[in-house]
Amino acid sequence: MDQKGYRRGSFQSATSDEDMLEIAGASMDFSMADDDPPLDREMGGFSSYNGGGMNGTSTMMDFLEEPLPGVGTYEDFNTIDWVREKSRDRDRHREITNRSKESTWALLHSVSDAFSGWLLMLLIGLLAGSLAGLIDISAHWMTDLKEGVCLAGFWFNHEHCCWKSNTTFTDRDKCPEWKSWSQLILGHGEGAFAYILNYFMYVIWALMFSLLAVLLVKGFAPYACGSGIPEIKTILSGFIIRGYLGKWTLVIKTITLVLAVSSGLSLGKEGPLVHVACCCGNILCHLFTKYRKNEAKRREVLSAAAAAGVSVAFGAPIGGVLFSLEEVSYYFPLKTLWRSFFAALVAAFTLRSINPFGNSRLVLFYVEFHMPWHLLELVPFILLGIFGGLWGAFFIRSNIAWCRRRKTTRLGKYPVLEVFVVTAITAILAFPNEYTRMSTSELISELFNDCGILDSSQLCEYVNDFNSTKGDDLPDRAAGPGVYTAMWQLALALIMKVFITIFTFGMKVPSGLFIPSMAVGAIAGRLLGVAVEQLAFYHHDWAIFSGWCSQGADCITPGLYAMVGAAACLGGVTRMTVSLVVIMFELTGGLEYIVPLMAAAMTSKWVADAIGREGIYDAHIRLNGYPFLEAKEEFSHKTRAMDVMRPRKNDPPLTVITQDSMTVEDVETIVTKTTYSGYPVVVSRASQRLVGFVLRRDLIISIENARKKQDGIVSTSVICFTDYCPPLPPSSPSVLKLRSILDLSPFTVTDETPMEIVVDIFRKLGLRQCLVTHNGKLLGIITKKDVLKHIAQMANQDPNSILFN
Amino acid sequence: MDQKGYRRGSFQSATSDEDMLEIAGASMDFSMADDDPPLDREMGGFSSYNGGGMNGTSTMMDFLEEPLPGVGTYEDFNTIDWVREKSRDRDRHREITNRSKESTWALLHSVSDAFSGWLLMLLIGLLAGSLAGLIDISAHWMTDLKEGVCLAGFWFNHEHCCWKSNTTFTDRDKCPEWKSWSQLILGHGEGAFAYILNYFMYVIWALMFSLLAVLLVKGFAPYACGSGIPEIKTILSGFIIRGYLGKWTLVIKTITLVLAVSSGLSLGKEGPLVHVACCCGNILCHLFTKYRKNEAKRREVLSAAAAAGVSVAFGAPIGGVLFSLEEVSYYFPLKTLWRSFFAALVAAFTLRSINPFGNSRLVLFYVEFHMPWHLLELVPFILLGIFGGLWGAFFIRSNIAWCRRRKTTRLGKYPVLEVFVVTAITAILAFPNEYTRMSTSELISELFNDCGILDSSQLCEYVNDFNSTKGDDLPDRAAGPGVYTAMWQLALALIMKVFITIFTFGMKVPSGLFIPSMAVGAIAGRLLGVAVEQLAFYHHDWAIFSGWCSQGADCITPGLYAMVGAAACLGGVTRMTVSLVVIMFELTGGLEYIVPLMAAAMTSKWVADAIGREGIYDAHIRLNGYPFLEAKEEFSHKTRAMDVMRPRKNDPPLTVITQDSMTVEDVETIVTKTTYSGYPVVVSRASQRLVGFVLRRDLIISIENARKKQDGIVSTSVICFTDYCPPLPPSSPSVLKLRSILDLSPFTVTDETPMEIVVDIFRKLGLRQCLVTHNGKLLGIITKKDVLKHIAQMANQDPNSILFN
Repeated sequence: MDQKGYRRGSFQSATSDEDMLEIAGASMDFSMADDDPPLDREMGGFSSYNGGGMNGTSTMMDFLEEPLPGVGTYEDFNTIDWVREKSRDRDRHREITNRSKESTWALLHSVSDAFSGWLLMLLIGLLAGSLAGLIDISAHWMTDLKEGVCLAGFWFNHEHCCWKSNTTFTDRDKCPEWKSWSQLILGHGEGAFAYILNYFMYVIWALMFSLLAVLLVKGFAPYACGSGIPEIKTILSGFIIRGYLGKWTLVIKTITLVLAVSSGLSLGKEGPLVHVACCCGNILCHLFTKYRKNEAKRREVLSAAAAAGVSVAFGAPIGGVLFSLEEVSYYFPLKTLWRSFFAALVAAFTLRSINPFGNSRLVLFYVEFHMPWHLLELVPFILLGIFGGLWGAFFIRSNIAWCRRRKTTRLGKYPVLEVFVVTAITAILAFPNEYTRMSTSELISELFNDCGILDSSQLCEYVNDFNSTKGDDLPDRAAGPGVYTAMWQLALALIMKVFITIFTFGMKVPSGLFIPSMAVGAIAGRLLGVAVEQLAFYHHDWAIFSGWCSQGADCITPGLYAMVGAAACLGGVTRMTVSLVVIMFELTGGLEYIVPLMAAAMTSKWVADAIGREGIYDAHIRLNGYPFLEAKEEFSHKTRAMDVMRPRKNDPPLTVITQDSMTVEDVETIVTKTTYSGYPVVVSRASQRLVGFVLRRDLIISIENARKKQDGIVSTSVICFTDYCPPLPPSSPSVLKLRSILDLSPFTVTDETPMEIVVDIFRKLGLRQCLVTHNGKLLGIITKKDVLKHIAQMANQDPNSILFN
Repeated sequence: MDQKGYRRGSFQSATSDEDMLEIAGASMDFSMADDDPPLDREMGGFSSYNGGGMNGTSTMMDFLEEPLPGVGTYEDFNTIDWVREKSRDRDRHREITNRSKESTWALLHSVSDAFSGWLLMLLIGLLAGSLAGLIDISAHWMTDLKEGVCLAGFWFNHEHCCWKSNTTFTDRDKCPEWKSWSQLILGHGEGAFAYILNYFMYVIWALMFSLLAVLLVKGFAPYACGSGIPEIKTILSGFIIRGYLGKWTLVIKTITLVLAVSSGLSLGKEGPLVHVACCCGNILCHLFTKYRKNEAKRREVLSAAAAAGVSVAFGAPIGGVLFSLEEVSYYFPLKTLWRSFFAALVAAFTLRSINPFGNSRLVLFYVEFHMPWHLLELVPFILLGIFGGLWGAFFIRSNIAWCRRRKTTRLGKYPVLEVFVVTAITAILAFPNEYTRMSTSELISELFNDCGILDSSQLCEYVNDFNSTKGDDLPDRAAGPGVYTAMWQLALALIMKVFITIFTFGMKVPSGLFIPSMAVGAIAGRLLGVAVEQLAFYHHDWAIFSGWCSQGADCITPGLYAMVGAAACLGGVTRMTVSLVVIMFELTGGLEYIVPLMAAAMTSKWVADAIGREGIYDAHIRLNGYPFLEAKEEFSHKTRAMDVMRPRKNDPPLTVITQDSMTVEDVETIVTKTTYSGYPVVVSRASQRLVGFVLRRDLIISIENARKKQDGIVSTSVICFTDYCPPLPPSSPSVLKLRSILDLSPFTVTDETPMEIVVDIFRKLGLRQCLVTHNGKLLGIITKKDVLKHIAQMANQDPNSILFN
């Protein structure tokens, strides 16, 4: 598909399931998840619409009976009606409660229904935790495979391999069982040729992994690429993307995530883990009718699953819940908060019992700092915040520009080639530098680490003066040559990461942003930390250091600077606030360091917001034209409903259906000639007094069904939406009663209502459309898409960038 | 005022500022905060209503100009209109943004306006933290004053006094400078007479403190009594109680809280600290126009202040924010979340730098456990959860029953006597038992504590077998006689606390529930913990202990049981969930113990919810008839808007105003004859087509103003709500144009709308009233009070228990 395939959605178009979804700027030569059975279709496909203005349900004998298959369901790439979905769930709940008094069996059913939510959370936690453990273990092994192989068993990674060995603690990673490729092939690991061989093998493995990943994504599950968070945000806000959370996506994303991480590309597994957890949530929803059949309830589960995803990504359950609340979720009632927390805990503890990091720590980067920080240190922390904000804004701009270019030029047609080139460049640049060769999470771990007396890494090569050492506390020391080397290498690594990440995020492989952003910040932070430390060491007589940093004192912790820098950069890119600080807090476990983290996160957000308001996820949502109504931004323009509603001034009048005077043929003509997804029903064309609203899909299905199954329904039959239909001459064909599909409680606003209030109503109630009246007469209609287009227009953006309904 | 003063509000009554507010069941012989200048009145009193359907504001030259004083403000004991308030704030913001382009001064104004929220948070944090420090220090000193006095300076408390002394560590609390009353008066502390003297002094001081507290509350600030959380919940949901958060309340509550805590009554300072912090927030709002003049914005600040209050109460900033989110707040946008977190952090660190606990710990109960827990221990933890749930439900029922009795019988007329009697009983029963004599927070601290090798307290009097001790780890040991004595004393203390708390909560003194609930749970937990420990010690050969609790191992930590018990009881009473677990987690700082806490909290909530759905705060809200629309409970009945709206079937028709055909006299007659707080404006009586809604208060003020200041406005003047008024004969008096006070965008629903959706709309949008239409014709009106009454009716409660508008 080329540029003209990049279609613009039209107003109220009901044909959008033909629209193709553009994922993260990819061109759509991929088959659209057609290997993926339409899970959602099955879920939503056979439930009845009992909500809104329908009163017939209470008289139904069996509340699970479906009057008409398809009535009350949604097309793909359409927005759900939250009010309707929640009404349906309440009807269901009411039925179960009423029946529970009738028999023991019904009572049991009611109890099991009440606890099914908890059971589901437990299952999601277990599954997400297990998958995360599997991914961690595999990625660890495959990352090491790029460097060598274990003779004791090829399935051991470097660390495991050397555990078995009897070497001493310091030589832990130089055990005889572990052979680098040169050792294996040449028999030795010294010399230029061995180095080149290792280099070659490293690049080859990286290319193999990444090519396999992109081919799997391309071939089996195009939805498995990217971080998935923008799409999940959109889905949670009430959009339908069939197959996006399906089982094929889950399988392929899990496999390709391992491959992508192992290939050494500048990407992380945290965002995709959220996607994986949401897939688990969606699939497990099928076990319970309550969640299978209700789009709103399912989204509650998905919010909790997202929390579980972050929880396993960092080992931070509370941070995960807050991330879901702050960043991902749209509708997050308190009941969901509590359940999310449960799911996040279960997931975190499942992961811990699998113990992929081999240290029975819950968290990804465990750090323990010994020294408190000083108030004056807030200055460098705020500097890091500014750096984080600038980097975040720069990254978002460049990445979006690149993704837009990929989307609109020939570049997007060759995703495999793109991945090949980027991987090759990354691998070739990465190998010579120790800090880019290691996996990014190892790098962050090392940067966060506070140098102890036993640490033998290059970063901890200080000039030791054992005379001044008291007990465990190491004083600030002069940096040794190792530290200076490390500084240069880190500076180079920083430059490389900054640029390569821009091109990596958005490729056709699963890719998270958390880890690369944190790496950039951690490097910058460590550099600054060491600089401040050396400054304090050599100039402890300066006035700014007097009183808190005398000679021989341990006053600067470079690891803390790395951590603060990581928080700042992550904040700049994602614009997370509380959840960011809480995730970082959970890593250290000490309330001590919350203030530096908060200072950096706040500065970073302010700086980044001053340059561009959108976080990376929102920017990608806009790039892809998803119909997402941002809950954080206030709409601040002084327009009114009449400025937004359709029909506009010179448009033909609104298409309406009258309550008791149109024939089947009339209605069919309207449905054929227009593409609107619903029609207002009025008393008469003259009065324009609103009776209700009927959905196109329900109308088509009901008429078709009636023509097939009901006697006497012909084209000239009158359709009647009222309770008592007007008497007709005896010769006329029988009347088609459609009151049951009529929503008798459509939302209305007056034409004078300020748009800020309309936006608020759409946001808070989750509406799909709203009718506009003036002095009691129907004037027009506002759909969610109209609202989004209007917001885009007011923000001087292209209103046609909103693609779907 | 006697029982007949306990008036029932009437439908849509606008006279409710004559209604007296019943606080926590007190009869109203107190003067109604008349010493308290009407802060809120001043705040809301001179701001204009520019929101809703008004379009005139954009043409106004000065956006701070007030067209008519009083228009757009609220009466006391009325509900605010969130939509209107938020509209006003957006208008204000828009004006400032527009002007910022004009001059540097306006730009500075705009920037300072943007940062004023953060500055306000900083100030609230500092003030709340300082006050909490002050309260802690004073309460500590006065609690010790009941036992004796420091000769080195009477202003030292026991601990401080002995710090100065050169005694050894173990005799810390037996230094010569500290004299018990018997030592001071008799010269010695031995013998029965000395004991009786100490006993006597203890009771006398307790009575003095509590009487002073109740007299201060009674005399100066009746709103200072109770925990304040039910009222704050109500205020945050949009209700107006003038003076409840005023400066007199702040001063008196701070002083009386110290007195009440020191008197040894079974109450805590945590709830009242939230009230104190909210008072700080409300008072500091006066510094900023943005918050002073807008009820909705002020409530955002108050939500953050509540978080700061919990943060200083426990030293748990994250828990505080979640508490505010989960338990107290109604409207909590994400921006507020981040700011709350900031305020909570500042408050916690201010408190820490004051360091009232003398240990530079942030948290109230710092605990450090060394041993992990075993999966099998979940059984006793769940038992504790069941206990907590049962106690919570029992407490709520009994306390509400007692408060209702106080409210409806002569008992309520003697609050001072009541406090006297309860204090006397508490003091007399408390003194002989060591565990009730100490302050409740000390008791909890001791119960949470894991017995170390150096602990000399009675609870840690185990039979030491130093042969089996390895390093720091103490194995499970046989309990010594001290432990057995402690068990008996604790059991007695448990019984006393359980019963006395029921009568204490709701008296006319500041009283929090957190600490007494936690104490009950901690005692029960410790008892169970020691029992399990001894069981494991003597029967380590039992199958259930095999594999994890062999002889000489440290497997049971009774302190953890105490902590889990405390969480369970607190959960049972307040029905907190996530915030409870997070607060407890912040106390320990280890993710390890989240699972036991969660298990207990979940069980406790389920058990308590099975007995009664309401938490203690909700129960008190209902008892006092506050118009609080619970956001957590789903409305699950199948009624429709037509069943709830007024007028009902046989009522006279709805009072409406026509848009251009009524005279000033007609409208004045309507206003005099009815008490509704607003009137729908229609095109004509015949068509009943809705144009807008006008508020009674605005109408009265505008007509009065026009009669005074506008020429030619007489009783026969026609009032016109349209843009272009119809031409009148030249002889007729001039027309009164009132379009500016007409809300052109009233919310409407159809008569067929299910009440569940109506309740949702009221809740989510914060409406005051909603109009009901049928086929475009106005049928009736639903106010928030109607909704609340309907909910009460559906729950088989007295619908007349809802008192205010």
